[in-house]
Amino acid sequence: MTTERTEPGVDGRGTVAAVRPRTAGRYEPLGLGEVRIGGGFWADRQRLNRDAIIPHCDEWLERAGWVENFRAAVAGTLPAARKGRLFTDSDVYKYVEALVWETGREPAPSSDQRIRELTALFRATLEPDGYLNTFYGRDGQPERYSDLAWGHELYCYGHLIQAAVARARTTGPDDDLVALGVAVADHVCATFADGANPGLCGHPEIETALVELYRVTGERRYLEQARVFVDRRGHDTLGDTMYGGASYYQDRRPIRELDAFEGHAVRALYLAAGAVDVAVETGDDALLDAVRRQYDRTLARRTFLHGGMGSHHHGETYGADFELPSDRAYAETCAAVASVMLAWRLLLVTGEERYADVIERALYNVVATCPADDGRGFHYVNTLHRRAPSLVPDADNPSLFRTGGMRSPWFTTSCCPTNVARLLASLGGYLATADDDGVQLHQYAAGTVSAALPGGAAVRLTVTTRYPDDGVVAVTVDAADRPVELSLRVPGWASGATLAARGGAPDPVEPGRVTVTVVAGDEVVLTLPVAPRVTVADPRIDAVRGCVAVERGPVLYCAESVDQPDVDLDLVAVAPGVTPVEAGGVVELAGLVAPAPDEAGSWPYDGAEPRPEPRAVTLRLTPYHSWGNRGVSTMRVWLPADPA
Amino acid sequence: MTTERTEPGVDGRGTVAAVRPRTAGRYEPLGLGEVRIGGGFWADRQRLNRDAIIPHCDEWLERAGWVENFRAAVAGTLPAARKGRLFTDSDVYKYVEALVWETGREPAPSSDQRIRELTALFRATLEPDGYLNTFYGRDGQPERYSDLAWGHELYCYGHLIQAAVARARTTGPDDDLVALGVAVADHVCATFADGANPGLCGHPEIETALVELYRVTGERRYLEQARVFVDRRGHDTLGDTMYGGASYYQDRRPIRELDAFEGHAVRALYLAAGAVDVAVETGDDALLDAVRRQYDRTLARRTFLHGGMGSHHHGETYGADFELPSDRAYAETCAAVASVMLAWRLLLVTGEERYADVIERALYNVVATCPADDGRGFHYVNTLHRRAPSLVPDADNPSLFRTGGMRSPWFTTSCCPTNVARLLASLGGYLATADDDGVQLHQYAAGTVSAALPGGAAVRLTVTTRYPDDGVVAVTVDAADRPVELSLRVPGWASGATLAARGGAPDPVEPGRVTVTVVAGDEVVLTLPVAPRVTVADPRIDAVRGCVAVERGPVLYCAESVDQPDVDLDLVAVAPGVTPVEAGGVVELAGLVAPAPDEAGSWPYDGAEPRPEPRAVTLRLTPYHSWGNRGVSTMRVWLPADPA
Repeated sequence: MTTERTEPGVDGRGTVAAVRPRTAGRYEPLGLGEVRIGGGFWADRQRLNRDAIIPHCDEWLERAGWVENFRAAVAGTLPAARKGRLFTDSDVYKYVEALVWETGREPAPSSDQRIRELTALFRATLEPDGYLNTFYGRDGQPERYSDLAWGHELYCYGHLIQAAVARARTTGPDDDLVALGVAVADHVCATFADGANPGLCGHPEIETALVELYRVTGERRYLEQARVFVDRRGHDTLGDTMYGGASYYQDRRPIRELDAFEGHAVRALYLAAGAVDVAVETGDDALLDAVRRQYDRTLARRTFLHGGMGSHHHGETYGADFELPSDRAYAETCAAVASVMLAWRLLLVTGEERYADVIERALYNVVATCPADDGRGFHYVNTLHRRAPSLVPDADNPSLFRTGGMRSPWFTTSCCPTNVARLLASLGGYLATADDDGVQLHQYAAGTVSAALPGGAAVRLTVTTRYPDDGVVAVTVDAADRPVELSLRVPGWASGATLAARGGAPDPVEPGRVTVTVVAGDEVVLTLPVAPRVTVADPRIDAVRGCVAVERGPVLYCAESVDQPDVDLDLVAVAPGVTPVEAGGVVELAGLVAPAPDEAGSWPYDGAEPRPEPRAVTLRLTPYHSWGNRGVSTMRVWLPADPA
Repeated sequence: MTTERTEPGVDGRGTVAAVRPRTAGRYEPLGLGEVRIGGGFWADRQRLNRDAIIPHCDEWLERAGWVENFRAAVAGTLPAARKGRLFTDSDVYKYVEALVWETGREPAPSSDQRIRELTALFRATLEPDGYLNTFYGRDGQPERYSDLAWGHELYCYGHLIQAAVARARTTGPDDDLVALGVAVADHVCATFADGANPGLCGHPEIETALVELYRVTGERRYLEQARVFVDRRGHDTLGDTMYGGASYYQDRRPIRELDAFEGHAVRALYLAAGAVDVAVETGDDALLDAVRRQYDRTLARRTFLHGGMGSHHHGETYGADFELPSDRAYAETCAAVASVMLAWRLLLVTGEERYADVIERALYNVVATCPADDGRGFHYVNTLHRRAPSLVPDADNPSLFRTGGMRSPWFTTSCCPTNVARLLASLGGYLATADDDGVQLHQYAAGTVSAALPGGAAVRLTVTTRYPDDGVVAVTVDAADRPVELSLRVPGWASGATLAARGGAPDPVEPGRVTVTVVAGDEVVLTLPVAPRVTVADPRIDAVRGCVAVERGPVLYCAESVDQPDVDLDLVAVAPGVTPVEAGGVVELAGLVAPAPDEAGSWPYDGAEPRPEPRAVTLRLTPYHSWGNRGVSTMRVWLPADPA
């Protein structure tokens, strides 16, 4: 069993064929056929995705008429019959990508049939020269490429191409969807090459898609076109938007020259992912360093505790350094998905486990937060503080419901549900990597890793763990052709972790990476301290000055009103130095609650009145990812520390 | 010398004729001819308004083509020649209102000529049935009233009518502009009466304008139509907006049923002002109480320290209770103008001086902040914390520049400059009131008050003061037909104030109102303690937890980077309990500044590293209203108190 590194190919293992994603980075990613999640936190969510989220997306894409737009294109009833905003094609493509990964993970004939049916519909909509969009170009529609800044045509292509890449990596390159992706990519290269149309899309996404298509096809024109788009950006050619100037589109200055991400968060992160792809595949270290520098600064200054990004509702943009308001955290789900994409690319190329820390944080605290327990509602925005009781969305009219605090079944711009669906279905691909010497585990879930090392050896591991409920991660080497290096990530928060190898005593290990040489039959046990802990913020993050948060392992906790019916979360405080207590799976914190002040008509900046004596309460905390599943509530992550 | 109370009329005093605004409230407002500001803070700004702001607005209204739109309407070259957004007519009207008040305050033949010229242009644009708008109704334009939710037609009428009311109060009712206002109001009544078009305008403004026109004409149909618009609102008939649902327009629930203002702040406040006008003139105490209750709660929970309102950039809306982020304070200048309008109406009807406190706060800290020192730039947004260095606006392309931190010469939506111009020109009208027994001074400026009391007596006062630089306010009774009651406001912040009457010793007076009986020749001296003081916020305002602000009398202070070149305002703190020091007109505060941490790539929520020792610094504070006049800077109002 070998995996082709330099040419596209399919491994023939079992029913899931996988083109391993090749990169020129330090670590080699593994295909979906090589990493299986067998149980626990993420297995539950993959099951939810298969049984609820994906069917729900299909139902709503039909109900909203966004699939029907393609049928109408074929029937010739556009533009009259067109439904939804101009970029809805992209969500159909993202849904197909999710379905492709899911059938790759766990074959299902009916899903495969749906993929083929939708692919045929896209194929029938494709124009002879490779143009494909239901919103443009027909009589009565805007002209093709007449509004590149806002038109999202290349963005839609990008998502179609990503679906094609997923298909190539799970079914193999000889497939109608892959052929469609190639046709569209060829059209893009013909249309937007240097010397042809000099435009660029207001919403990045095509860049990473083209590099990924290059990886599965070996066609360098796609890589070159992605490079062109990256370098073409940042010269203020897209004009103003209602959300301000060119920074919204990352068109103010070239990505090579920026200090931190700015503008629309999802756009910035997709662009950065594409830029890393270009840098890695072309050996452009200056570009790679520029993106790393920006991301590192963005993580240090423009990222919320849950790993979400985007401080402004207006324009869905990054804010200034340290502008991280809990109650106005936008932290769009898609930005967290995009941050996972970017951190993954940087992990592969640099081997620095802190990027895996970023992935873990965003996965447990934003991606896992997005879907409702029943998989039929989604957070678009991931606030850290819900002040007013959340609003119940209107399932028949979910149009603009992003900020009501409860999960909505769908959105007018419904990017998040399909983004989470495609990430959950492909999640196995983000857990482990390989290099010539061995295997690296970056995220922990019960399951198996069967990796063909780039150097030729084969390794098979079984991971046994109840992580993150429990901190013990046991890795058994089921098979290994030769002694190999097994690397385990020790998360940044895991002070006091230990590693016991081959029945030995546990040795302390520092956050970062711990590597042991193993042979078949070995067992290695990593123990991570997941007891709840108190977190404080850099004092420059004004929004949470004087507050504490509670984390437990990788999981952020919050206080939700449904768990403390007698406590007004506006009036709560915790004693300085108090530590959270866990018993029977419940995390509690000793707190104080002040009586409600008599304030009718009072000016809130006097501070003169004596404060009434607070009473002691026990705050029951709940994982942030689970909040908002038990009816209308208020919620806060950051709890004021009592100044007295 | 008498002033007609129940019928419109003109007093013949001097060159300025004034129809005193009649209300059915507790206090009678005075006309511009009765209150003269002679020197000091507001005289300086009235001079700036006359010499710079008003000419600047005229120049830009021409440059932007918004006056030209009316010429194009007359020439028949619309819609091709139309410039600007759909509501630009309103700014031409607001400019005319400013010019009208200004010529009423201080006659100027050239200004009067400009008023007549523009009035003739409006008159020539007026359609035979009283319809007037340059954006609608012609071939190739949207139909009249085809989009009431967003169309702003009634909003534009409202501002035209306000200009007409100003003209009636300064020149008298026999005037072309007044006649135009009447023609438009008659059209509105004919078109939107109950039983006719049941619509309402997405942007309130017509309501207060119609009541004001009723006050100068005595025509009850205008009052009735205003009542109809107020009661028609709040039944979710305007539909959704991109800023969310009906609350944006105050159309979610009737104003009688709300607890606090919600949605677009300027809309909410204009509506509330109109509702108070309707309530006062129709004796609708339930409506009055509803608005008061909402405003009081809004002041207690949804108002920034500077008196500004509007927590969200997205939609320019109120946020939830206590959601008052310094760095994202929207606090649109127009919302402060509207808050002054509303507080003034509530002061008149209730006599509660705390509404005059609200006016004072908004005037010194938002209205005065808006214009640049040279009167040729304006803040649209009034942030309390500028983190990144402010951006220099592009004078040739000011289109979307609201949030760059520096003042812009104009805006695509340029409501704020003309709003400040009309308020500054009419400011004398907000300083004092009268009732049967005497005169009440609510705001302090050097000048004179010559009031004909409703009960018949005449009083003439001279106010001598350098307020707010100095806290001594001396009031001399120059003339009084009989002994009258002189009331002086003691601001809510003025603990320790004293009053000395007729040469007596100073007696302590409490915040609120102090009243003395005076006769001609008396002098009364109020001394307000304007030493700088430290202010803290209600602990529920999370955004400023653990911070202090400095105020001096009614003036809010801030730390601006240009005054402390060696201090990073992100890293500054003040010692707990420290008091500001004033010497030679300079306000300083002992502070600490921490060394810049080494943070490349660091996660900002660890809090584990030892904090390096801060060094002591002296922070020089500057009045908030003057910030941003000395080049690119950062700025913060709330200063962290050092927790150590």
